[in-house]
Amino acid sequence: MNFATKLGLAAALVALPSLGMAQETEAAAEAAPDIMPYIMTTLLFLIGGFLVFWMAAGFAMLEAGLVRSKNVTMQLTKNIALFSIAGIMYWLVGFNLMYPGDFNGYIGSFFSITQLEPVGLDAADADLGYASVASDFFFQLMFVAATASIVSGALAERIKLWPFLAFVVVLTGFMYPISGSWQWGGGFLSEMGFSDFAGSTVVHSVGGWAALAGAIVLGPRLGKYKDGRVNPMPGSNLALATLGTFILWLGWFGFNGGSQLAAGTVGDITDVGRIFANTNMAASAGAVAALILTQLTYGKVDLTMVLNGALAGLVSITAEPLAPTLFGSLWIGAVGGVIVVYAVPLLDKLKIDDVVGAIPVHLFAGIWGTLAVVFYNGDTSLTTQVTGIVAYGVFTFVVALVVWFILKLTIGIRVSEEAEITGLDTSELGMEAYPDFTKG
Amino acid sequence: MNFATKLGLAAALVALPSLGMAQETEAAAEAAPDIMPYIMTTLLFLIGGFLVFWMAAGFAMLEAGLVRSKNVTMQLTKNIALFSIAGIMYWLVGFNLMYPGDFNGYIGSFFSITQLEPVGLDAADADLGYASVASDFFFQLMFVAATASIVSGALAERIKLWPFLAFVVVLTGFMYPISGSWQWGGGFLSEMGFSDFAGSTVVHSVGGWAALAGAIVLGPRLGKYKDGRVNPMPGSNLALATLGTFILWLGWFGFNGGSQLAAGTVGDITDVGRIFANTNMAASAGAVAALILTQLTYGKVDLTMVLNGALAGLVSITAEPLAPTLFGSLWIGAVGGVIVVYAVPLLDKLKIDDVVGAIPVHLFAGIWGTLAVVFYNGDTSLTTQVTGIVAYGVFTFVVALVVWFILKLTIGIRVSEEAEITGLDTSELGMEAYPDFTKG
Amino acid sequence: MNFATKLGLAAALVALPSLGMAQETEAAAEAAPDIMPYIMTTLLFLIGGFLVFWMAAGFAMLEAGLVRSKNVTMQLTKNIALFSIAGIMYWLVGFNLMYPGDFNGYIGSFFSITQLEPVGLDAADADLGYASVASDFFFQLMFVAATASIVSGALAERIKLWPFLAFVVVLTGFMYPISGSWQWGGGFLSEMGFSDFAGSTVVHSVGGWAALAGAIVLGPRLGKYKDGRVNPMPGSNLALATLGTFILWLGWFGFNGGSQLAAGTVGDITDVGRIFANTNMAASAGAVAALILTQLTYGKVDLTMVLNGALAGLVSITAEPLAPTLFGSLWIGAVGGVIVVYAVPLLDKLKIDDVVGAIPVHLFAGIWGTLAVVFYNGDTSLTTQVTGIVAYGVFTFVVALVVWFILKLTIGIRVSEEAEITGLDTSELGMEAYPDFTKG
Repeated sequence: MNFATKLGLAAALVALPSLGMAQETEAAAEAAPDIMPYIMTTLLFLIGGFLVFWMAAGFAMLEAGLVRSKNVTMQLTKNIALFSIAGIMYWLVGFNLMYPGDFNGYIGSFFSITQLEPVGLDAADADLGYASVASDFFFQLMFVAATASIVSGALAERIKLWPFLAFVVVLTGFMYPISGSWQWGGGFLSEMGFSDFAGSTVVHSVGGWAALAGAIVLGPRLGKYKDGRVNPMPGSNLALATLGTFILWLGWFGFNGGSQLAAGTVGDITDVGRIFANTNMAASAGAVAALILTQLTYGKVDLTMVLNGALAGLVSITAEPLAPTLFGSLWIGAVGGVIVVYAVPLLDKLKIDDVVGAIPVHLFAGIWGTLAVVFYNGDTSLTTQVTGIVAYGVFTFVVALVVWFILKLTIGIRVSEEAEITGLDTSELGMEAYPDFTKG
Repeated sequence: MNFATKLGLAAALVALPSLGMAQETEAAAEAAPDIMPYIMTTLLFLIGGFLVFWMAAGFAMLEAGLVRSKNVTMQLTKNIALFSIAGIMYWLVGFNLMYPGDFNGYIGSFFSITQLEPVGLDAADADLGYASVASDFFFQLMFVAATASIVSGALAERIKLWPFLAFVVVLTGFMYPISGSWQWGGGFLSEMGFSDFAGSTVVHSVGGWAALAGAIVLGPRLGKYKDGRVNPMPGSNLALATLGTFILWLGWFGFNGGSQLAAGTVGDITDVGRIFANTNMAASAGAVAALILTQLTYGKVDLTMVLNGALAGLVSITAEPLAPTLFGSLWIGAVGGVIVVYAVPLLDKLKIDDVVGAIPVHLFAGIWGTLAVVFYNGDTSLTTQVTGIVAYGVFTFVVALVVWFILKLTIGIRVSEEAEITGLDTSELGMEAYPDFTKG
Repeated sequence: MNFATKLGLAAALVALPSLGMAQETEAAAEAAPDIMPYIMTTLLFLIGGFLVFWMAAGFAMLEAGLVRSKNVTMQLTKNIALFSIAGIMYWLVGFNLMYPGDFNGYIGSFFSITQLEPVGLDAADADLGYASVASDFFFQLMFVAATASIVSGALAERIKLWPFLAFVVVLTGFMYPISGSWQWGGGFLSEMGFSDFAGSTVVHSVGGWAALAGAIVLGPRLGKYKDGRVNPMPGSNLALATLGTFILWLGWFGFNGGSQLAAGTVGDITDVGRIFANTNMAASAGAVAALILTQLTYGKVDLTMVLNGALAGLVSITAEPLAPTLFGSLWIGAVGGVIVVYAVPLLDKLKIDDVVGAIPVHLFAGIWGTLAVVFYNGDTSLTTQVTGIVAYGVFTFVVALVVWFILKLTIGIRVSEEAEITGLDTSELGMEAYPDFTKG
């Protein structure tokens, strides 16, 4: 999903006009260009896009399963609302801000609404070295929604609905697209050689940094840290949380595989297959690492850690799902799982209350994955990877802090103590998620 | 999914024999026809078909989440049974009744069972301008199941299982295919210029009209309208309802995108991408419209309205997901969301008890979407659109009324009062959906 | 998914060098080979693979819904753990053991780790008659996980976590790949003419035999068979069980359709469509058969039987989803549904406690489906089909018995009586799946 990759690919396709017809004359090749790469890459974006769309359901189920039953309706509302808002903001501002074409490398022009190509596009008018604009837009907008979902999980059970959605507007319309343009829009980090194939940093860490800023400004849930002890607040529905994890895992094949950005040559489709296999391996390894480690550390397996271990494995491989061998994907993913097991209690020690473990999974494993690129991708250096991580971290964390503070000082971001104790479903929305069941 | 489109497409492919080989001689082109359009369109139907299949699960979860816990097993049973019956009836009668080839324009011939092409079909025997019959059948049968699911939701919590399934037999084997042939089978509405790309009317309104007739004949649930007041009967599991909505949203990419009926040219695959992007936008806009409107109207956001708002946005764009701009999709979808927020209480005023809001979502937004075609598709007129809406409405509503009355007078359609109070799961099926949990 | 098929296909493609360019000279054809079959088949494996991946979530939801609420966390943990372990074992040993190339026909060489092709594979280095190794590996590893999931369901509610996972290591790394090589790796059963298109025997029966051995060694749940009566222990969440069934149904399109192992010619993609249509028909027929039969037998419809009927229909058609007509698929699937309705009480009579009905669905319907191949596929004989069934049965059942006994005698496989009564979630994992809800 690298701008340079796009350009390189287009150049290659111009240079080797049509793989299937190398023996024909130049004239014929020009008259009958090979449309298969365009069609296959467009298809890749559509399939990849609907798989990443599906991750929105995954986040919703994961979070609905990990909050207490009194806050489920609110969590569901946030998830469907943030996805819908992201879709509108990315059209209104985000897409063209993130992929501005020629720009200064730091910030593109605002207020350039996304336009699709006309109906029934003629092959002569198509960017045959890439894919349809509509399919590209469709694929990319699913990524921005993931960023917002990460924030939603971390700040659950105490944040008000509308301030959260206001933050989503800023995040999906401006913060994510601006910082995203630095890398995927051909900006300064891309120029510098920073490498982040599908977004360990560009997507996941950005969500994680925004969540961390929010968790600090918002403060922990009432009673979470009392008398120096961490009070566990177990999720209300682990079946849903597991379903959400499987959904995210499935969606990740589109997330990483689609980021190959091409599927119409032998090399590209083979690479997409490699990415699928590596992605699955990293998730498996993250889950197994957390499985074994929680058994060894706590004497019993912790399902929520296993789920987050799988997700951390996925985040870890996202920065470079193509270059590693299967063994490489295994150990990179396993380290992601280990990180989660140790980072969750660490955050609790710091009294940063992250309800679903989003910060360990998306921020910490995201940083790890971005660093791990250097082991298998010879074109990167540790220095540029660290530079990229720091650039995204500083920008996102600082801007998010400012936005959260402004929201806190103006409309307020936290529900009342009473509302929090009663539960947000009843107090804020007047609608329980499971009204028929007696709560213990 | 228009018969004329199919013919036009085939004609175009005959006229411009093979895009990739325009410079070869006629003889060579005939000897080596371009098989890519056939392969890609068949693939489109298979992918589109499994996505629309997935909507069956979406309806099941949405409805299971929106009924009370004592009726969940029954609702699940209806959903898996109706889908299975639809698959058999559409093979036995429906498919060839709906796509009869040459016919009088009003009704094709009954009792023509679907036959697939032979195994290992030779390219010379294939309809290279379209797609494999099997893939087409697979795709189309998923649509008929959607129609039946709409009825299932509206009539929940009081209808008996077998009479409902008897209605499903009639609806999926006869009613839907006959009226469907008027438009997609090349019948009189298609001749007249009526336009309904993926079925706002042909699928969704038809389901809605059948549901409306059923709701009137069946009557409201006990205690729903008492002493002039509307007694809310909240759904038992909003997490499932939200999951169902996300599933439907995902499936809709196949529903609308697959209805392009072609994917093997630059123009077609680009159009499919445009449809995906527009479909997503309309859903987002419907959800956001309901989000804002319920906040403004009731002072708090109503999750079930937001879910139905997204679905109404989807239904609204289904009649014309290709022609509109993204902005067009936004406002068309948003109006769908608004319709739902106002139509749900309206039905309650009329004492028409629609348990999941299927009539506002599928019938009212379906009518709206069919009318909205005129704004972006210059080939249609308001008069023909209204004609089509009325034709489908009168036929479906009247036939459904008759069928429901016959069922009522013969085997009876409603469970006993006692069974309804106890819950259909225990009284009719002897099996609770959540037996371990204490109900409040 | 037959080794011979693969070889035959490759040979055919060498013989008829390039379908789309038959009129070109040999030299030109060699210089510009047709890459579309490779690309489409690779894509088929990726799409098929993610659909079969999704079945892992289906098994997890089905099983979580069919166990009692006190054992849900354990069941979820087993499912995500077994899938992760399968992915690692199949890479480490299984894939090359199952597809060894030249071998003695009974067992390939151990310790041959899976290697993927290099990044950016050149068309000249690709197996253009088949697909990318990575996509093939990705697709195949999803099958092995299904086998383990079958075991997980049957042995629920009383087996310890780690012994179960140890069995999964043996099953996915060794048992399944060794026996699988007999047929799909080109071994002795393939030589003999045994036919099992997508794995009624190779996958489903194998899982069923392993489950049966485990159920016998492990014994029934406490109180299941008391005083000569069968004590029903109803599943805690039929909505999840239904969701799981729909997920499995969806995934099965990939399971059977992907097993065509080719998608780049008119004949192949048409066959994939035929498989999709047949698969759906068999599932529908299995569900309807169980629906009608439970009504007739017990006087009321049994949802869990309907769900298992659909699954049995799917298993039944898996040995030959291509050759039958739609009517053939209907009656083959319907017989599967009938088998389940009668086999579930039969197992109870034998005091074999199969919590989710996995043995009737996967073993009995798997045997039925393998026998039914002879009705539509003229290349098979009843003798070879029975030979294959017996070979898989004897090998898997005996080895599984030995492994289960070793595990029983060493680390022990069953939780304590007290733990079983309390529930495995609290006693073994210290984590309830639904902690907020009062259990009745």
